[in-house]
Amino acid sequence: MTKARTSRRRKSAPPQIEPRAPFILRKLSSFNVLSDAGLEQIEANADTILAQTGMEFQDDPEILQIFADAGCDVDGTRVRFAPGFCRKTITATAPSRFTQHARNPANNVQLGGDSTVLCPAWGPPFVHDLDRGRRYASYQDFTDLVKLHHTLPWLHHSGGVVCEPVDLPANKRHLDMLYTHIRHSDRAFMGAFIGAERAGHAIDMARIVFGEAFVAENPVLYCVSNTNAPLVMDSHMSGALKTYARAGQPVACTPWVLTGAMSPATVAGTLAQVLAETMAAMTLTQLVNPGAPCLMGSFASTMSMKSGAPTFGTPEAGLMVLAAGQLARRLGVPLHTVGTLSASKLPDAQSQQEAAWGLMMSMFAGANLINHATGWLEGGLVTSFEKTIVDHDLCGKIGRFFDGIDMSENAQAMDAIATTGPGQHFLGSEHTQANFMSALFRPWTPDDNSFEQWHAAGEKDAAQRANGIWKEQLAAYKDPGLDPEIDAALQDYIAARKAEKPDQDYF
Amino acid sequence: MTKARTSRRRKSAPPQIEPRAPFILRKLSSFNVLSDAGLEQIEANADTILAQTGMEFQDDPEILQIFADAGCDVDGTRVRFAPGFCRKTITATAPSRFTQHARNPANNVQLGGDSTVLCPAWGPPFVHDLDRGRRYASYQDFTDLVKLHHTLPWLHHSGGVVCEPVDLPANKRHLDMLYTHIRHSDRAFMGAFIGAERAGHAIDMARIVFGEAFVAENPVLYCVSNTNAPLVMDSHMSGALKTYARAGQPVACTPWVLTGAMSPATVAGTLAQVLAETMAAMTLTQLVNPGAPCLMGSFASTMSMKSGAPTFGTPEAGLMVLAAGQLARRLGVPLHTVGTLSASKLPDAQSQQEAAWGLMMSMFAGANLINHATGWLEGGLVTSFEKTIVDHDLCGKIGRFFDGIDMSENAQAMDAIATTGPGQHFLGSEHTQANFMSALFRPWTPDDNSFEQWHAAGEKDAAQRANGIWKEQLAAYKDPGLDPEIDAALQDYIAARKAEKPDQDYF
Repeated sequence: MTKARTSRRRKSAPPQIEPRAPFILRKLSSFNVLSDAGLEQIEANADTILAQTGMEFQDDPEILQIFADAGCDVDGTRVRFAPGFCRKTITATAPSRFTQHARNPANNVQLGGDSTVLCPAWGPPFVHDLDRGRRYASYQDFTDLVKLHHTLPWLHHSGGVVCEPVDLPANKRHLDMLYTHIRHSDRAFMGAFIGAERAGHAIDMARIVFGEAFVAENPVLYCVSNTNAPLVMDSHMSGALKTYARAGQPVACTPWVLTGAMSPATVAGTLAQVLAETMAAMTLTQLVNPGAPCLMGSFASTMSMKSGAPTFGTPEAGLMVLAAGQLARRLGVPLHTVGTLSASKLPDAQSQQEAAWGLMMSMFAGANLINHATGWLEGGLVTSFEKTIVDHDLCGKIGRFFDGIDMSENAQAMDAIATTGPGQHFLGSEHTQANFMSALFRPWTPDDNSFEQWHAAGEKDAAQRANGIWKEQLAAYKDPGLDPEIDAALQDYIAARKAEKPDQDYF
Repeated sequence: MTKARTSRRRKSAPPQIEPRAPFILRKLSSFNVLSDAGLEQIEANADTILAQTGMEFQDDPEILQIFADAGCDVDGTRVRFAPGFCRKTITATAPSRFTQHARNPANNVQLGGDSTVLCPAWGPPFVHDLDRGRRYASYQDFTDLVKLHHTLPWLHHSGGVVCEPVDLPANKRHLDMLYTHIRHSDRAFMGAFIGAERAGHAIDMARIVFGEAFVAENPVLYCVSNTNAPLVMDSHMSGALKTYARAGQPVACTPWVLTGAMSPATVAGTLAQVLAETMAAMTLTQLVNPGAPCLMGSFASTMSMKSGAPTFGTPEAGLMVLAAGQLARRLGVPLHTVGTLSASKLPDAQSQQEAAWGLMMSMFAGANLINHATGWLEGGLVTSFEKTIVDHDLCGKIGRFFDGIDMSENAQAMDAIATTGPGQHFLGSEHTQANFMSALFRPWTPDDNSFEQWHAAGEKDAAQRANGIWKEQLAAYKDPGLDPEIDAALQDYIAARKAEKPDQDYF
């Protein structure tokens, strides 16, 4: 049956039908959950938080000086901002859209406006697949995931830490990860997020790939900078943020909160805090380098009020990302957010109810980059190979959905209706024959066959079918190639950096 | 562990926290996928279809006479409608909203406006649960499902053929099904859909329950009348439609189409055909009894262009239901549509990706009644006990989502943010303590615990947990009681109808 499946899926895989879109261009609107009055209240509350409570910037005296020079109220490590200051600073210089370049220009992604870029899971120290179960992630897994993602047409970005290769020294593995993205994929990728030094390495490596002059003028990396909610930014994050901003590379300023733990237990309270934190961080990017691309980030989910465990795919998470989209549009900056999150341990019914909820809400929010659009399990502790495939179907579906409704004369099909007539079927009609390859989107994993056919094929559930698909995809991976001179220069650079200090198994 | 689960779930079940809402009152807007120009084009195309191709009404001469008397062009069994005639007839008298009464008035449902009523699966001849597998449905299953649904707070309606009790004679089982809804639930329920005689039985039984005078003035039943796409209505459906409409009982006029088979392979073509069919059927309800409640129904999904199998949770199905919502609002009638459809054979990742897609799209469409909001598998051949529970979580989530964002002073939580301050947590804050029971929605099935806790609890997937939950719910079912005189009268009525003719195993 594996052979039969392969053949069915390959025939239905869209690369044979249409060219891969480098990102989604949404032709439908966004969905609004707050009135203008509600949004103004959230904005006023964020201003109040920034003015009265302010934000802590720890272990980074340079940042305190930058804020002081800009006229902010700096009291020890606490910075307070006059009402309106952050908004004015951001809207004065932050671009509303920009292009992140890939080494293959066909894979460049637009960030801002009506575009959405879907990225794989980021950060999990574990991986899971049905054959090998749950285990610590290795560099081999990292490489396999980068290659697998590269074969997936409805993902747009190679991502960053697609899993943590814990068999590599913690203080050097960012070099191997960056190399793997560059070597095995020609899509856009993310930089290293932790600390100024590693961010500098990412920029150095990007200069080797793209050339120094190009990198000086164009975004080629992408940094997610998390605040430590509530209202703290530490030097690991601020160091990377400064480094990328100075190099003109985009920074997604992303408070990560679980309501009730790191923010109030309510949506409106959390939104004000998230807006305050992201505005403070975006303000920093603009003070460091006016005009450097930055994104409003929002990664707000909920927690179990019984156990304190993080929960995902919840009504409140949906409301928060939709409101964040409205707030980002009013600020005139792109929105970075998150996708198919789940607390489930398996690619099961829970994981997909939560995943579909999360990705759909982020799309309706008009998100411009959706991190964790595939593979995330266990609240981010695990990247699942099978869930990557199942989530990827959803990525394709939502992209096609946001193409909207074709109102061409062909699509209106008035002749087909008139000539088919009552009680007849359209299966063999000329119109159906002419449109059947492109009219309807075809995901890879679903089994739409009869019970009897499904039974004969071994009664596989979706995860088991996805297990076959990711292996076929990985086997079909095609090396995009890399200029040998660039490859050698990267390897030399990495060897030199690794030689500078001993391995460490901690950050 | 079962005991632990039970206790956890019972504590988190919302009936202990807040009264059950009899239906969802949406505080958020609907999502539009077509411009006014696009909608006008679809409407013009529907008018063209009705005027030029027309619709077949088979084996029901009375209907042909009704249309002829109204000035329509009747040619054999083909009826053609002047452009604008159907819209004018519907908008002149069809109510934009109405109440369907339940025998417990607390369970009355509003149909129209901003309300949404969620109903269980309808029609499956098979049932599935993890203990007994897939099997033909029995009357015992039917009864168990009615009781189970009655315990579910986020469902609003007892439904109709929650499964086909195939161990009962096909020509009499509608009597048993109606009795079971009335006896074991005090929520609103649906009538029998097939043929005038059975529709009459449903109305007779409703009169026994509610009283003849009340039924004459108030909707107490609900009929789904499917067209046979393309552009045919047979006498089974028209007979029931006429009977309910004459009794002032609501009819959801619902074309059921798979694009490419029963309509063109394109969204725009399918929409025009669906609108034509539903308008012709709604027109019939208004000619039979002006002012009788009717709903625009839309059940448009897709098919595999390779195998011809029905497919669900697709981008095109989403676009069609959202456009149908816009078309219904322009007609000024409530929208009836469908929910958690899936072609999957199991309550697995496929089933929930498709289910979440379908229910969320119908909610964003502003649907007023969503049939099949729980339990549907295998393209409607199966009601799954476990999927009922998993889908029910989604029903609760989407209901809470459409409550929108609480902007009260308490929810803004400005004091909590000010007093907690940077780097502290909100877990023990006064605000969190005051809000934690109600602030965040809690579904029943998800496992949000750590891997280690989940492992210790037996590594159950969502379906396995749902298996425990439906059994606990069924065990906890509370008989709502029924006036013994009404019960006896119903039983007498049923016995008399059954005695009138021999059993038949076919319709």
